Amino acid sequence: MRAFGSETRVPTLVAVLDLIRERGTVSRVELAEATGLTQASMTHAVRKLMALGFVHEVGTARSGRGTPRRLVGIQPDACYMVGVQFDRFISVGVVVDLAGRVVVRRELPRAGERVPEAVLPELAQGVQSMLAAAGAPRDRVRGIGLATYGPQDREAGVLLTQQPTPEWRGFPLAAALEEATGLPVTIENDATAAGIGIQALGGSSSSFAVVFMSGGIGSGLIIDGHPYRGSTSNGLELGHISVDALGPDCDCGNRGCLDNIAGPIAVSGRARENPGLAARLGLGQDPLRDFTEIGRAAVAGDAEASELIDTSIQRLCVATVTLVNLFDVGRVVLAGHAFADVGPLYREALQDAFDNTVFMRQVHSVKAELADDVAHAASIGGAMVVLRNILESQNSVGREPATG
Amino acid sequence: MRAFGSETRVPTLVAVLDLIRERGTVSRVELAEATGLTQASMTHAVRKLMALGFVHEVGTARSGRGTPRRLVGIQPDACYMVGVQFDRFISVGVVVDLAGRVVVRRELPRAGERVPEAVLPELAQGVQSMLAAAGAPRDRVRGIGLATYGPQDREAGVLLTQQPTPEWRGFPLAAALEEATGLPVTIENDATAAGIGIQALGGSSSSFAVVFMSGGIGSGLIIDGHPYRGSTSNGLELGHISVDALGPDCDCGNRGCLDNIAGPIAVSGRARENPGLAARLGLGQDPLRDFTEIGRAAVAGDAEASELIDTSIQRLCVATVTLVNLFDVGRVVLAGHAFADVGPLYREALQDAFDNTVFMRQVHSVKAELADDVAHAASIGGAMVVLRNILESQNSVGREPATG
Repeated sequence: MRAFGSETRVPTLVAVLDLIRERGTVSRVELAEATGLTQASMTHAVRKLMALGFVHEVGTARSGRGTPRRLVGIQPDACYMVGVQFDRFISVGVVVDLAGRVVVRRELPRAGERVPEAVLPELAQGVQSMLAAAGAPRDRVRGIGLATYGPQDREAGVLLTQQPTPEWRGFPLAAALEEATGLPVTIENDATAAGIGIQALGGSSSSFAVVFMSGGIGSGLIIDGHPYRGSTSNGLELGHISVDALGPDCDCGNRGCLDNIAGPIAVSGRARENPGLAARLGLGQDPLRDFTEIGRAAVAGDAEASELIDTSIQRLCVATVTLVNLFDVGRVVLAGHAFADVGPLYREALQDAFDNTVFMRQVHSVKAELADDVAHAASIGGAMVVLRNILESQNSVGREPATG
Repeated sequence: MRAFGSETRVPTLVAVLDLIRERGTVSRVELAEATGLTQASMTHAVRKLMALGFVHEVGTARSGRGTPRRLVGIQPDACYMVGVQFDRFISVGVVVDLAGRVVVRRELPRAGERVPEAVLPELAQGVQSMLAAAGAPRDRVRGIGLATYGPQDREAGVLLTQQPTPEWRGFPLAAALEEATGLPVTIENDATAAGIGIQALGGSSSSFAVVFMSGGIGSGLIIDGHPYRGSTSNGLELGHISVDALGPDCDCGNRGCLDNIAGPIAVSGRARENPGLAARLGLGQDPLRDFTEIGRAAVAGDAEASELIDTSIQRLCVATVTLVNLFDVGRVVLAGHAFADVGPLYREALQDAFDNTVFMRQVHSVKAELADDVAHAASIGGAMVVLRNILESQNSVGREPATG
């Protein structure tokens, strides 16, 4: 399968660092070969990474009779990044080192139905406590990546939605968390963050879509290592595409939205209409926890729970086939807390749908996968966004035109 | 609105030539300013275009007290490209000069239900006849861009579908047309070609989606001047996304596909079930011509025709809102023969849907437009694909890493 056809993309410092992380120790020559850069360009890139303190010389290797090649490797404790995935029903944080290792992971206060002024101090306190537990020297903590729902103004660090309360719309989320923690804060779409997390953990050369299910359903797309952004980073709203043109009106303005038929709030709401099932599974907590119980019961073979999950799976398959038919991807990865237990059922059904219903299945297969760290991909991705920001700010080399 | 966020994209020869075409006559300094390239890079790019004979010096201009600036302009007759949009129900061709002007446009033999061996000689004959009419010197005719339906193996120049007859699947379409005409042939998705045509005619800096309706419904996406390709150029199949999860099975493997509910074949099929309407409008030709009659009647206020068109519009709106919610575009352009008469009704309904139901409407507006040359955008785009291939093959400048 060919790459995503953007002939003018060139490898970046992000890609070079990912590659060094993957290989462990590696020579500049090997890096140049793996990326298609000239050796001079790679020497320049490695010099930048060394100047940042992110990469250091770790020895030499001799291959055949030639001159020994100097090897470079990552300096894992050169910096630490905080990632937080945050919404109404869940909030988890991680501290990640430069090698991509999760040093601390922790549940944090979620939004619930509270106003931002009530939530932010708790969130800041949670971050400080994680950093203390990580033992990361303060001057090496480079910032917080806050992965959350949209629509959002990513540049301004502001949510543009009244969820969960009207006070959140326009609230200076990034600025308030910066003020409370003393650390730079970047906001990122949660599904896109999950894609960045999956990529950082699983290899740098990939193009894939993410279906992300937490309190709601979203999706993300990584093309040749870069997130697809659309015009304002507010695309890929899988939960708000219609899977039933005559379905219920949604707050978003659309009708028959996937989220209202297949998402945790919809599934748990339907489950609570069945008192026997609700009592048997101890439902009535919050939608995401209830959904988790229903999913576990479905995995264990409970017929009533299975019926609810099957409806969700069926509609998620319809929407994800739409995603594949529009973006033409070869790989779809599931991530988010809602998939933590019941994920294998969704994955299996998606694989079946991909094998039998996607438009381009005779051109190439489409693979359905569960993320390795399904519940933390987005928070880890949030942390990696901080690192990407640092590397992208190093973009000071003049660009030649790609005359093609 | 920010650009599509691909930080590593760089301007290309295609963009430089588009800009010269737009401006008429322009200095290198102005070109450098408009593209963000250095003057040295722009001088290099212009030199390449001059070596191809595409651009020449056209005089000087003095601004203020400085040295007069030399101006460059396009050499319109430096080369000619043939574009053909081709499917079962329609086939149209154009000969385009380097200035993007359509020198000849003509209806060509369509596939109908015939095997490729019957169609190809007629198509080749049509191309030869257009070229004769254009009076283009043979050595300046650079190739044929054949805009057609998918799935396709664009690289190999082969269709991967049994439409309209099983013999078309795997038939070496590009090679056979090359053999028959003596000209290089590139195949391109018809909706993507329409996007390239719209861009070439309307400015170089754009990001937008295309909804293309001919025999079937498709879509395309231009991001910062580049077509979105996905992994195999087989994405954006708007006609094969489900708008009714319980709808009829489709040959593509999916169910409730937009094409089978809103496309010309579906609408004309439903119209023919109404003998009074069919007689009144003289239906019973082919689906696309019937659809055109139904559309004209709807525009003229025929109640029965309007009801059929309204159903099509409603479902096309649902699917196009999905397209917008996933790709986050600010502009959707309608193109293709099916929109030639009835296009304004679709455009108006889409604008209403965008204003009221797209997910990111509080972040930015989304504009619905009809292409300027709605019936020929895809064939013109096919011709421009030939030009793009020439320019992209000039990509011999070594690339520096974008260290961001």
